[in-house]
Amino acid sequence: MSPADGPTLRLKRLGIDTHQEAMLYMRRDSQICRSEGFTAYSRVMVRFGNRSIVATLNQVVTDILDDGEASLSENAWALLGVADGDTIAVGHPPPVESLSHVRAKLYGNRLDAAAMRAVLDDVVAGRYSDIHLAAFVSACSGENMDDDEILSLTNAMVETGDRLQWNRTPVVDKHCVGGLPGNRTTPILVAIVAACGLVMPKTSSRAITSPAGTADVMETLAPVDLDLATMRRVIEREGGCIVWGGAVHLSPADDIFIRVERALDIDSEGQLVASVLSKKVAAGSTHLVLDMPIGPTAKVRGPQAADRLETLLLYTAKSFGLEARVVRSDGTQPVGHGIGPSLEARDVLAVLRGAPGAPADLRARSLTLAAAILELGGAAPAGEGAALAAAVLDDGRALRKFEAICEAQGGMRTPPVAPYTRPVPAKRTGRVVAIDNRRIARVAKLAGAPDDPAAGVELHTPVGSRVERGQPLMTVHSDAPGELDYAFEYVATDHIVQIEDGD
Amino acid sequence: MSPADGPTLRLKRLGIDTHQEAMLYMRRDSQICRSEGFTAYSRVMVRFGNRSIVATLNQVVTDILDDGEASLSENAWALLGVADGDTIAVGHPPPVESLSHVRAKLYGNRLDAAAMRAVLDDVVAGRYSDIHLAAFVSACSGENMDDDEILSLTNAMVETGDRLQWNRTPVVDKHCVGGLPGNRTTPILVAIVAACGLVMPKTSSRAITSPAGTADVMETLAPVDLDLATMRRVIEREGGCIVWGGAVHLSPADDIFIRVERALDIDSEGQLVASVLSKKVAAGSTHLVLDMPIGPTAKVRGPQAADRLETLLLYTAKSFGLEARVVRSDGTQPVGHGIGPSLEARDVLAVLRGAPGAPADLRARSLTLAAAILELGGAAPAGEGAALAAAVLDDGRALRKFEAICEAQGGMRTPPVAPYTRPVPAKRTGRVVAIDNRRIARVAKLAGAPDDPAAGVELHTPVGSRVERGQPLMTVHSDAPGELDYAFEYVATDHIVQIEDGD
Repeated sequence: MSPADGPTLRLKRLGIDTHQEAMLYMRRDSQICRSEGFTAYSRVMVRFGNRSIVATLNQVVTDILDDGEASLSENAWALLGVADGDTIAVGHPPPVESLSHVRAKLYGNRLDAAAMRAVLDDVVAGRYSDIHLAAFVSACSGENMDDDEILSLTNAMVETGDRLQWNRTPVVDKHCVGGLPGNRTTPILVAIVAACGLVMPKTSSRAITSPAGTADVMETLAPVDLDLATMRRVIEREGGCIVWGGAVHLSPADDIFIRVERALDIDSEGQLVASVLSKKVAAGSTHLVLDMPIGPTAKVRGPQAADRLETLLLYTAKSFGLEARVVRSDGTQPVGHGIGPSLEARDVLAVLRGAPGAPADLRARSLTLAAAILELGGAAPAGEGAALAAAVLDDGRALRKFEAICEAQGGMRTPPVAPYTRPVPAKRTGRVVAIDNRRIARVAKLAGAPDDPAAGVELHTPVGSRVERGQPLMTVHSDAPGELDYAFEYVATDHIVQIEDGD
Repeated sequence: MSPADGPTLRLKRLGIDTHQEAMLYMRRDSQICRSEGFTAYSRVMVRFGNRSIVATLNQVVTDILDDGEASLSENAWALLGVADGDTIAVGHPPPVESLSHVRAKLYGNRLDAAAMRAVLDDVVAGRYSDIHLAAFVSACSGENMDDDEILSLTNAMVETGDRLQWNRTPVVDKHCVGGLPGNRTTPILVAIVAACGLVMPKTSSRAITSPAGTADVMETLAPVDLDLATMRRVIEREGGCIVWGGAVHLSPADDIFIRVERALDIDSEGQLVASVLSKKVAAGSTHLVLDMPIGPTAKVRGPQAADRLETLLLYTAKSFGLEARVVRSDGTQPVGHGIGPSLEARDVLAVLRGAPGAPADLRARSLTLAAAILELGGAAPAGEGAALAAAVLDDGRALRKFEAICEAQGGMRTPPVAPYTRPVPAKRTGRVVAIDNRRIARVAKLAGAPDDPAAGVELHTPVGSRVERGQPLMTVHSDAPGELDYAFEYVATDHIVQIEDGD
């Protein structure tokens, strides 16, 4: 189709962010809507030069758009690479053939590898609306996929994205199944493992709804927004990196499905396995350690669920030639002292430096995982990984490796310190029996995290601490007095740290 | 929750029509987004006075909204009953508990009546996003519902909407399973049936994507936008009516599900049965005739599919004490001459008046269906319905009843005549072997139907006609020369009527 095949419209940027769903805005009374029979929420093909996307139509009935004008949601704007005043052509989209596979799956049929690939091609090309995505995710949820389908899905997720290749082996990696607040082991692990000569090219994500992602934390210590060529140079020089995954598109379908699964609060095992392993296979990993926190409020609730998930993960990993090992860990409470990019970075540095007061739980978890990676990757004989990891951490080799990685990524930084801090005093004397993690995270966000990297919360009294009335339970850090006040208003109205009698 | 419980924003109408999905527009850099952790596509509770809805957040990054301002999509605007400058409060929505039933269904469990009702309550209250709706529709698609679940779903759809009650019995009704273009039997049927003393309170829909709905056609003959009290007066006086269903909300969930099913191109039998019967049970019908066109391009493809669907329809209808009968009909080609509100109304009047040239197919179909209704409703002994229907139509009683109904609805109107018409001449001599219904409908819409009721297409040469080169195949009717040109541009580029050699 050439642009001449459809009526054209002049773009005006309204700047509406609809996350992933591509939206087209057009006047309802436009000749095009009438003649093409477009109604609100019609699917419309939008073309600009030789690029095209399928968008959902929102019809405008006021003068925010003039006759002959149209707009696009921010993601569609970026996908097409358009600018204000550019001319787009609109028309009916071709039918999405792969939806027949989604219907077949809903009707109880199995999907073969070719069908999965056809679906994933259309998903990644943005041809599925939210309704289509939800139907596919639903069809593949529960126990509706057999082992072969999980394999096909994983493979299709890998093949519809970028793939990294490394000229060394093993390439080790680590993933935490179902995050735990403050469980910021990655920078420490990479440092230990790379110091022992293994290759660990780690891509991490930024926060979506939490006060900090690993990429946000690492960014207070070094640049993380590296292109693939720079990332390769870092790996060649230092053996390890901790960069933001945004520059490479590993398993882009995963991010799309995760949003839908989150909205439905569905996380079936098959989808979890495909999600985790597609990213790792695409990243070129050969050896993978999976941190699996188990606890009543964690993603994996108990040993039985852990057994099933472990079997499925290892079976699928093996099919891709990926050697995997699961390390089960305590998932009952958060890890470390700080919440927020800078404060979590300080915990990481404290562990690497062996500083007094460094969070013991973060250190212990890092050593356990590092031991598993070292043994799996052949850097330590079985049973000797723990001793090697501890030695490398304690004699400063891990710290020096970490500093070298930061330099290679563009120069080590000192995490910023917030200009405003205020302690939250205990309202009574007693013992801390519980801390509400969800609410603590909210205080950190009210204080400005992750946009203000120095903002967040520093916890002083973990569960089990004995506290006196007036003693600081936590300190809120902020870039501006206004945000500090805002966070405090919330702290005042809510029971975040629960204190009971006893000693 | 009082409005004081959440931060407030001042409304500015952007006028964006998103069909059914409720959208909230807020600046991304607003204090509220940051402090509440709202990101693009977060679900947000919006309150105005004592009304509240759940909306999906679109974040604005330009100055179409100022600090402290927000906007809502047109449907959300109407649901809350707000005006420019009103103040809304926003906050986190309570969790949608019934989604646990959707998840249970996806995991292969049965839903009982209480679970179906809980889901439908939330659906009708607008608490389900498109993603949630698609998951529920997917979970209930294919052959995933048993007979009891279909019954529970139908019942929940009835109970979550308005219900009409009539102090007479029988109350007859008719429904066409899978529409056929031009199959405008309803006004003729109501006239015949009411003339024979039966009660038939018919609610009809307007066009969504077609050039005319029954309500659009009837509106060219009489007012159809009646409130419930007026509708009752018409029924008391005349026994029948043909009104727009918009004033009463019968099975509102049906309209919501239909949009999602259409997007997925799913129409499982269970959902079709629930859709059709919920509207009829809610309308207070006691006897129902179902017109089931069968043809390769109709919804029901062949006799086997018809058997299955008929069994399911009759079983479910019986459970509600609704006496139903299925009349199978020819679904291979469209009915009547005109396409567009006025032109279809002229076909209806021609049949009622016994005018020369009245479409014989429309007359025959109307008589067959009327016979079934008369027999089912006890106005004619078995086997004598057809003769009675024909007598009432031929002796003018049906016409007089129709005129009386129009008067009762507010006064009979003469369908408007388009000021501009232009014939489409045959490009060659031969025989008409096919007419593309979809494209004919598009010409009618380009000419202005249904917004301009007089606009549309009049077909002169049905399939099988012998035509000479230059002879008019159809006449396009329009309110404006511009639209006539626009329709003709399309006619010129496309093969709408296929003519082949032969005589």
